[in-house]
Amino acid sequence: VATATETEGPRRITPVLLCGGSGTRLWPLSRRATPKQFLCLTGDETMLQQTAGRVRDEALFRRPLVIGAATQADEIAKQLAEAAVVPFRLILEPCARNTAPAVALAALASAADDLLLVMPSDSLIADADAFRAGVALASGWAEQGGLVTFGVRPDRAETGYGYVKRGAEIAPGLFEVDRFVEKPDQARAESFLRDGGYDWNAGIFLFRADVLLGVLRTFAPDIYAAAAAAHAAARADGDRLLPDADAFARAPPLSLDYAVMEKAERIAVVPLDMGWSDVGSWQALYEALSKDGDDNAVSGDVLPIDCQACLLKSDGPLVTAIGLKDLVVVATRDAVLIVSREDSQRVREAVERLAGRGDGTV
Amino acid sequence: VATATETEGPRRITPVLLCGGSGTRLWPLSRRATPKQFLCLTGDETMLQQTAGRVRDEALFRRPLVIGAATQADEIAKQLAEAAVVPFRLILEPCARNTAPAVALAALASAADDLLLVMPSDSLIADADAFRAGVALASGWAEQGGLVTFGVRPDRAETGYGYVKRGAEIAPGLFEVDRFVEKPDQARAESFLRDGGYDWNAGIFLFRADVLLGVLRTFAPDIYAAAAAAHAAARADGDRLLPDADAFARAPPLSLDYAVMEKAERIAVVPLDMGWSDVGSWQALYEALSKDGDDNAVSGDVLPIDCQACLLKSDGPLVTAIGLKDLVVVATRDAVLIVSREDSQRVREAVERLAGRGDGTV
Repeated sequence: VATATETEGPRRITPVLLCGGSGTRLWPLSRRATPKQFLCLTGDETMLQQTAGRVRDEALFRRPLVIGAATQADEIAKQLAEAAVVPFRLILEPCARNTAPAVALAALASAADDLLLVMPSDSLIADADAFRAGVALASGWAEQGGLVTFGVRPDRAETGYGYVKRGAEIAPGLFEVDRFVEKPDQARAESFLRDGGYDWNAGIFLFRADVLLGVLRTFAPDIYAAAAAAHAAARADGDRLLPDADAFARAPPLSLDYAVMEKAERIAVVPLDMGWSDVGSWQALYEALSKDGDDNAVSGDVLPIDCQACLLKSDGPLVTAIGLKDLVVVATRDAVLIVSREDSQRVREAVERLAGRGDGTV
Repeated sequence: VATATETEGPRRITPVLLCGGSGTRLWPLSRRATPKQFLCLTGDETMLQQTAGRVRDEALFRRPLVIGAATQADEIAKQLAEAAVVPFRLILEPCARNTAPAVALAALASAADDLLLVMPSDSLIADADAFRAGVALASGWAEQGGLVTFGVRPDRAETGYGYVKRGAEIAPGLFEVDRFVEKPDQARAESFLRDGGYDWNAGIFLFRADVLLGVLRTFAPDIYAAAAAAHAAARADGDRLLPDADAFARAPPLSLDYAVMEKAERIAVVPLDMGWSDVGSWQALYEALSKDGDDNAVSGDVLPIDCQACLLKSDGPLVTAIGLKDLVVVATRDAVLIVSREDSQRVREAVERLAGRGDGTV
C-alpha cells in the first residue's frame, strides 16, 4: 500500500493520534463502548477533538494519522469531521494490541524520513503553545535520527505515572534520558520530587518513521514482523487503512515505552510545563477543571446548594446536591456514581463488580 | 345525591382515606404530579394501597370512602384496583381546599350515624393490629357522639409535629384531650417528651358523620356551607362523586384540626404505639425502613460499596455509591438528589429553586 508522501512545503511533522485506548476509570461516563478519548470532559470538544486541535498549526504539522479500533471507525470519523479535521489516513486496528504495534503500523504507513509525533488522544494539555514549542525544539534531534520523549515537570509525588530521569543537557531544553522508571511507590515518588531530576512520562514521542522501525526490528522483532505483515496485507478503503487481522493479532501487546523506548539508545527528553493531565481518575479531572467560587467543578444539568470542592457532572438527569463536600457525583442517562474525590480510584472496584451486567451500563 | 347506607351486618366503621395531599418533601420521588400517597416507599405497595390494606378487616370496617383530587381520579382508581380495593365511593375534589372541606364532603356523603375513620393516605403504620385495636377501643365513645383523635407516643423531641396533651382517663386507653399544641420549638418538644403526657397528633380521627357536621356548623360555618352546596350540586358518575367546583372553591382551606378539632368539646385521644411515621422527609423514611448490616436502606438498582447508614434508592438509573456515610441518594429517571440525612429537610430549598423548570422534574 502507498506510504504518506505529502509534498507541499518544507518538511513538517505528522501527528500520530493514538485513539485505540479503552478504559473505565471515568465510569460511568467512560465505558467499554465509549472510552475517554471520545468524551467531552473539559468543554465542548471531545478529548480526541482537543488533541487534533493541538496539532493544527500548519507551519509545524501535516495532517494527522489517526489510529483507532476498527469498531470505533465511524465515531472517530464523525468526531474528526465535527472538528473540521481531515486526517491524512485513519488506520483501523483489527484488535487492541497496545501502543507499540499501533505505532508500528503508523510508521509503516509513512515515508521513511517522515517525522512522527505520537501521542495519546485522551490527555489534557492546557498550554498547547508550550507543547508545540517543545515539539519544535525537539525536531532537529529527531531529524538527525534521535528519539524524543516529552516529559512533564511533576508538581506532586504521583505514584500513578512512570518517570524519566534526565541525564546531560544536549541542547537547551533537550536532555539525554538517563533511564525510564516504572510507577514508583510513595517514598520513591517523593524522593523523585525532591531530587528534581525526574519528569513524568507522558507517552508522547517524536522520531523519524525509519528510526522507529529500526528500533522495533532490534528490540521487538515480533511486533515489527506482525505489523509489517499486517501492513503488507492491508486493505485501503478511501482514507481508511485496514491492516490484516490475523497478522496483526500475532503482535505481542506491549506499550511503546516497554517494547523499545526503555531499551533504545539516542533517546532524549524534553521536559515541559504544559498543564498536562492524563485525566486518569475523577480526582484528576477535578484538578484539571476550572472551579466556581465554592471550588466546585460543575457541568450539565446540576443544582448545587451549599456544596464545596465537589465535582458535579450530569450528561443526563437533573442532579441536585445539597451540603456536600469533597464528593464526586457523575450522572448519565442510565448510571450514577457518587464517591469521595479521595476514593475516586475505587471506581475500578465498582466497574469490576458491575462487569457482568451486559446492559451497556459498563 | 344518595348517602351511604350499606346495610349488611352490624354497625361498622367507614374508613375515609384522604388522598388529596400534595407535596414534594420526598423530591425527586414525590412531585406535584405524583405526591407521596401514590409512591411505593416501603415495599411493593403504594402508601395509598397500604393505607387501604390497613382497614380491610371486614369485622370492623366497611368499604372505604376515598377523597382525592379530581385530576388524580384515574391514578387513585388504578391503585385501588391493583390492591383489590373496591371503594364505596370516590369523592373527587374539584380543587385542593385542605382537609376540613374534604372531610365535610365525606360526612355529607354518609348516613348521619355512620362512624367515619378519617386518615391520611400517606402515613406509615408498622403495627396495623395496634392501630385497629385502638380504633375498636375508641368506637364506643364515637358512637355516643364523641370525637376521637389518635395520638402517637413520641420517642423523640420532634419539632415537626403538632402535639395533643392528655387529660383525665375516660376509659382504659381513652383520655380526654386537654389541648392541642402547635408544632413546638426544640426546648418545648424536649419538655413534652420529659413530661410524658403529650402525644403526636397523627391526623387520624373517628366520629359520627352527624357529629362532625355539627361541629363544622358551629366552628366552621363557611366550610360547612360551601361543602353542603358543593355536595347538593354534585354529579355522580358510577362510584365517583363530583362535587360542584364553584361551590367547593368557596370553602376556606383549613385543616380539620385547626377548623374544628382544636375547638370542639367532647374530644378524646387514644395514644398508640403503632410504629407511625408521616414519612415527611428522607430522614423519616430512612428511620422507617429496614436496614442492611451496614445500616443502609437500599432499594432499586443500587450498588453500595463500603457505605454506612445511607438511604440509597433508585427508580431509574443504576446508582453506584462508594465510601459514603449518612447520605441520602435518590435517583429517578430524570432527577437525582444527594443530601446528608441530617440536611434532608433542605430538599424544600431545592424544590423552590427548581420550581420554574416546567419540565416535570418538580
